[in-house]
Amino acid sequence: MTDSIKFYFDFSSPYSYFAAHKIEATVAPFGREVAWRPFMLGKAFGLTGGKPLTETPMKGDYCKHDWERLARFMEVPWVFPDPFPIATQAAARAFYWLDDQDTALAKKFALAAFESYFGRGENISSPNKVAEIAATLGVDGEQLLAAVADEAIKQRLKDETQSAIDAGVFGAPYFIVDGEGIWGADRMWMIKRWLKSGGW
Amino acid sequence: MTDSIKFYFDFSSPYSYFAAHKIEATVAPFGREVAWRPFMLGKAFGLTGGKPLTETPMKGDYCKHDWERLARFMEVPWVFPDPFPIATQAAARAFYWLDDQDTALAKKFALAAFESYFGRGENISSPNKVAEIAATLGVDGEQLLAAVADEAIKQRLKDETQSAIDAGVFGAPYFIVDGEGIWGADRMWMIKRWLKSGGW
Repeated sequence: MTDSIKFYFDFSSPYSYFAAHKIEATVAPFGREVAWRPFMLGKAFGLTGGKPLTETPMKGDYCKHDWERLARFMEVPWVFPDPFPIATQAAARAFYWLDDQDTALAKKFALAAFESYFGRGENISSPNKVAEIAATLGVDGEQLLAAVADEAIKQRLKDETQSAIDAGVFGAPYFIVDGEGIWGADRMWMIKRWLKSGGW
Repeated sequence: MTDSIKFYFDFSSPYSYFAAHKIEATVAPFGREVAWRPFMLGKAFGLTGGKPLTETPMKGDYCKHDWERLARFMEVPWVFPDPFPIATQAAARAFYWLDDQDTALAKKFALAAFESYFGRGENISSPNKVAEIAATLGVDGEQLLAAVADEAIKQRLKDETQSAIDAGVFGAPYFIVDGEGIWGADRMWMIKRWLKSGGW
């Protein structure tokens, strides 16, 4: 099978940030494409009873420490942002609007938005901030602001989120490789294994 | 530092079962010992709001599938047991009673108990079943039954559980390497990395 590998993420998910740095390099050697799919993780949490990691006693402290060491391992910038978590609808809508025009540009935007939030600790929840990030990639700010306020793109994000949930996505990052669900930045080795062997 | 690597687990935790198969081989090349430390995971869940994976919508189905494929990867037997989860006090108390006499024997018992529950789907919650498992290793059944009913060993397990929680253990498996907490069977690569480099 040669379908794209689905990469489900939320712009407010630290482990998605780390995965975003690695997913293309993980998949590229196998000649497969990655379809980036931001979704509203909070919507899945509503079904599973999940909540932001930092709101869980003990686990929250563990994760904060873990993100710092993962950033050192991966040599990527890291700032634990305040506020955390944030609303990411504007960034996700902007992503889909860009993705419909230019997939490569949308991925660059996603990485730039992640870098802004987790690499520099900037609050990326507002449409204006999202437009500012996109502007660094040459995207027209006025057009983007109009696009993310459009009912069609709002519905698109709802539909993408529902599709993710229907496909079994309950956390982020979450990958689907030829129908096989793989959850977590820790499990990217399974993507390689699947792509090498065509199964388990 | 040459302290032992702490391996915290619960006999009713599937990911602990997988970790138990790998932890000694992971650590042995570095000349370090592993201290196996069963604890009552449910007690930690009481503090974190955690619950058995199978009771979480979506994630439960994912994990059942994940355990099957991990068992295939690792070439270890796997049966999803019914009932699941179970009370594991008897097994954990037996472990500590054995550990005080013979650490190697206690580890063999732990692996045998895991194999019984997750490898063959046998309910290991009762002291009698635990005694039966230990008997295959030459342990006297009467002595074991008396030991696991003893107030001192009951308190011991409570104390070990509290010590685990005080050390930050909120899930299983959980490892502590020179004071550094590492959570999850997925993260055993971090144990190696720490032991190789003495830090991150």
